[in-house]
Amino acid sequence: MKKKRLNLNVVLVEPNGPLNVGSIARLCSNFDVNELRIVSPKCDIFSLEAKKMALKGYRYIDNCKIFNSIEQAIFDCDLVIATFGRIDLSNDIECESPEDISKWISSFVEINNLGILFGREDRGLSNNELLFAHKILNIKTSQNYPSLNLSHAVSIILYELNKSSKNNDKKDLQVLDLASSKQIYESFKEIEEMLIKTGYLLEHTANSKISKFKKFLLKAKTSSHDINVLRGIVHQINWFLNNSKGK
Amino acid sequence: MKKKRLNLNVVLVEPNGPLNVGSIARLCSNFDVNELRIVSPKCDIFSLEAKKMALKGYRYIDNCKIFNSIEQAIFDCDLVIATFGRIDLSNDIECESPEDISKWISSFVEINNLGILFGREDRGLSNNELLFAHKILNIKTSQNYPSLNLSHAVSIILYELNKSSKNNDKKDLQVLDLASSKQIYESFKEIEEMLIKTGYLLEHTANSKISKFKKFLLKAKTSSHDINVLRGIVHQINWFLNNSKGK
Repeated sequence: MKKKRLNLNVVLVEPNGPLNVGSIARLCSNFDVNELRIVSPKCDIFSLEAKKMALKGYRYIDNCKIFNSIEQAIFDCDLVIATFGRIDLSNDIECESPEDISKWISSFVEINNLGILFGREDRGLSNNELLFAHKILNIKTSQNYPSLNLSHAVSIILYELNKSSKNNDKKDLQVLDLASSKQIYESFKEIEEMLIKTGYLLEHTANSKISKFKKFLLKAKTSSHDINVLRGIVHQINWFLNNSKGK
Repeated sequence: MKKKRLNLNVVLVEPNGPLNVGSIARLCSNFDVNELRIVSPKCDIFSLEAKKMALKGYRYIDNCKIFNSIEQAIFDCDLVIATFGRIDLSNDIECESPEDISKWISSFVEINNLGILFGREDRGLSNNELLFAHKILNIKTSQNYPSLNLSHAVSIILYELNKSSKNNDKKDLQVLDLASSKQIYESFKEIEEMLIKTGYLLEHTANSKISKFKKFLLKAKTSSHDINVLRGIVHQINWFLNNSKGK
């Protein structure tokens, strides 16, 4: 099977440094990224500062797509990876190395659109935002000063993905059949509705309880077919609950 | 044999961007570099711009060692690696990937001081400057826009070296026994003298002819012992030439 070129999309969430955005645009050009996408930028991405850092990569800023939510920014991605750089590495978050994730990605015959989520300069991505990702990666750095500048994290990850994509031995390629983050996210609207209605969840604690189930589905390599079966069940239960007259 | 921690020194040659120098100081801190060394800086490395980018890495600028020549900057390095990012990739220069060089470095039981040379933002290192290095590395980037920002090249290389240093399987470690760049460089002063005296080299073309021989010695994995034998021979010939009275 001939391997298709990977469409890699860099998704920045609320970046606040124009130098960073400019530097990242240059990196997009250095590593032949497909698109730069930005969720609610907190700085002027078209400023002179950004332009100076972007140099020939400025076309990525010119053509940049801006979104109001992560959900919209990854709407067409069949695979989503998030980066985790916060220092309060809670034991609850399972991270893998850029190298391992990169090898895993290159083990698939075809991925149409890959989205790599990068969080804010100061606080990264929230735990809830991390739930948009199939996998989470973390770059090992010094314990004394682990915090990488955003653009340097981007450079390392693009370098690692670029390395693997050139390095693929054609044998043992698998077909990617994971439910997209968007599918999982949408299913959860209905699942939540059902669990609240049936009293499993209380509205004010729904979020933390349901995130465990989301993590499970992301980790369980849930396929598109699996998620559709699940949605069918949930949809039917919700229909029943809405239409049955008794309590 | 217990592996010693690698003393990694980042050597910048004539950097002209304070933002880059600041960013690189932060990276030195992120990856536990030993020292930041700068050869003839072309900007104010203590400026506010540099400080803003360095953040907690500023102590690397505070403690930075400044030199007038590459020779002095690598005086105590037993292994020197140069980075090559120029676009006019002449066929004459043999480059390896950061990954391969990093694995090679981690195959030695002990390296006291490793120096990584990074060239100028606009033109990198000259061919003569590359001759200070035992090996030359190049980061694969887009053919359309290969030129990485200096600090991003540093980030990728420090990441890759850091990865290998943690990753070492203790078996098969070799003892580093290469003549240092400094030893080779110094030997060549005498070799050149001899070859000019004996008419093999003409003064105005000596440099290009001799650089082939330098490349050979660097590539040939010449040991400290080998280079001392060579120096002994050359020294004796020079003595003889200076002291024989006949033509």
